[in-house]
Amino acid sequence: MRATVIHAPHDMRVEEVSDPVVQQPTDVVLRVLRACICGSDLWAYRGESARQPGQRIGHECLGIVEEAGSAVASFAPGDLAVAPFVWSDGTCEPCGEGLQTSCPQGGFWGSVGSDGGQGEAVRVPFADGTLVKLPVEAASDDRLLTALLALSDVLGTGDHAAVGAGVTKGSTVAVVGDGAVGLCGVLAARRLGAERIIALGRHQARTDIARIFGATDVVAERGEAAVAAVRELTGGQGAHAVIEAVGTEQSMGTAVGITRDGGSIGYVGVPHGSGTGLDLGDMFNRNIALRGGVAPVRAYIPELLPDVLHGTIDPSPVFDLAVDLDGVPGGYKAMDGRTALKVLIKP
Amino acid sequence: MRATVIHAPHDMRVEEVSDPVVQQPTDVVLRVLRACICGSDLWAYRGESARQPGQRIGHECLGIVEEAGSAVASFAPGDLAVAPFVWSDGTCEPCGEGLQTSCPQGGFWGSVGSDGGQGEAVRVPFADGTLVKLPVEAASDDRLLTALLALSDVLGTGDHAAVGAGVTKGSTVAVVGDGAVGLCGVLAARRLGAERIIALGRHQARTDIARIFGATDVVAERGEAAVAAVRELTGGQGAHAVIEAVGTEQSMGTAVGITRDGGSIGYVGVPHGSGTGLDLGDMFNRNIALRGGVAPVRAYIPELLPDVLHGTIDPSPVFDLAVDLDGVPGGYKAMDGRTALKVLIKP
Repeated sequence: MRATVIHAPHDMRVEEVSDPVVQQPTDVVLRVLRACICGSDLWAYRGESARQPGQRIGHECLGIVEEAGSAVASFAPGDLAVAPFVWSDGTCEPCGEGLQTSCPQGGFWGSVGSDGGQGEAVRVPFADGTLVKLPVEAASDDRLLTALLALSDVLGTGDHAAVGAGVTKGSTVAVVGDGAVGLCGVLAARRLGAERIIALGRHQARTDIARIFGATDVVAERGEAAVAAVRELTGGQGAHAVIEAVGTEQSMGTAVGITRDGGSIGYVGVPHGSGTGLDLGDMFNRNIALRGGVAPVRAYIPELLPDVLHGTIDPSPVFDLAVDLDGVPGGYKAMDGRTALKVLIKP
Repeated sequence: MRATVIHAPHDMRVEEVSDPVVQQPTDVVLRVLRACICGSDLWAYRGESARQPGQRIGHECLGIVEEAGSAVASFAPGDLAVAPFVWSDGTCEPCGEGLQTSCPQGGFWGSVGSDGGQGEAVRVPFADGTLVKLPVEAASDDRLLTALLALSDVLGTGDHAAVGAGVTKGSTVAVVGDGAVGLCGVLAARRLGAERIIALGRHQARTDIARIFGATDVVAERGEAAVAAVRELTGGQGAHAVIEAVGTEQSMGTAVGITRDGGSIGYVGVPHGSGTGLDLGDMFNRNIALRGGVAPVRAYIPELLPDVLHGTIDPSPVFDLAVDLDGVPGGYKAMDGRTALKVLIKP
């Protein structure tokens, strides 16, 4: 089959690799119908995250079960299923607590020796614990299939951020980051009943999506000016609930600055940079909490799935460019150059 | 009247100062029956926190109302009352939310121009919002009076830490810090139903109190060895809820290391040092939350008071040395040299 392979920074190739097969009785082979490129894939692309030459890449996909191991109970060939960005055994204590990202047998797609989502098929370890079944009719609904793909990462990650930020009915929420995760944070905040949602972002195409998703205000400033603008919008106080969906020191500093005393930051931007960006003295004096981390999206899918199926929420607008496998290297280039927000892959 | 004044690091004096009077109609003058020295007072004593020569000091006291301003509704001369370590107006939005430490009109005892608790009397601003009435009969019960004094800071701060750490019935809790706040954190954790409480501390006199307060295990190691010991006690996983009651980079690092994936750190140790001690990447990967800050103890007193009055909880053992006003400089020396845990002052 063909799959995306990273050979070096900026050197993404789509090439022939060996077909995935059932290796363990708990495995499933999934034929990929939809995959995509994540903002965090760009770190490997830019050389900011180390990869061994020849590693696969892509951690978001959905598809049709092609083969199921003898111990797989919940899936049979022909089933449509979505894979979260971490596989997990579904039987350990962390999995039972809904913290599948801490499963001792869990792992990341594209790690050495594993398949990546950006290919024609993947071997799914612990299929019963990892995959979530989707109605097979969705396979013929292009828009719905795209919306369902967001369940593999960005939609659950946005929800994790909103939950960490403590969004409740009537909250004032601010969202730092206008990438796909930040936009899904807006969607999640609206779903959880936020009354006011302030989206921080300077790319109008993106903040336009934020408004579609429920943002009531947009702040285009950055840094100190952004803090001042959010404070002005909130009577000087800041937002109860702040979603941090970038992961840089500057964005974390902005998040602290716009959080109301006693409020929470839900952080899902993978931390990068040498410092934390956190002014712990300021957080202490103002009782600002920090909650979040890598989202156990497997735990969120069952709750979010009905809303996506019913169209109550539709994250599909975050995918603004679609490519086939041959188009993947160009897709990376487009996301790196910010001409695309999030690239959909139809293998 | 006489009060404690700080002239320079290590130069604490008890001297004649002007008598407090009602300056605003919302003021009360409180004759101090009990005060004490806080671990955070030692920072001024050691020169780690700057003070202007001549500033008062002490932020914990209870006493008898001597005079009440014309606008004071809830207090009259002769009432017994406890003062939290921050005064607050009781009428603003933060006060209404139980976040009195963020009251725009609030302030700290001992700040420039205000009285400190370590004297014969204090002027209490916004008495209705600040003070909490105690049964006047307690004034003649020496042990109870001492226990009630803990409501001014350490008991509420320990409770804030336990709440921030997410202690619930059946939790496994670890407490970093064997000072009075850490010990009150143990007491709070037991009160909230923790099943297992691991106290970290190397001073046996203190860990003995921790055991009286409900600690089920004591870990005397520090740093990496402490992390290993707590992990061994918890089947390799760490504690759901961790109380951080020190505030140094090392203690915060220990707190992160002993928190179970998905757990929370309730931090109430005032941050000092140049860094945060937080490994944000580790916290992100393991979904560790950080909650807490300066405790709005005024919000906790109404809930804790009945338990102290009924003897359900008794924080009085944290006071292991009692002095009169003349003994205050010696009390600082004893706490600085760790020969006393917490010094009680009977003016």
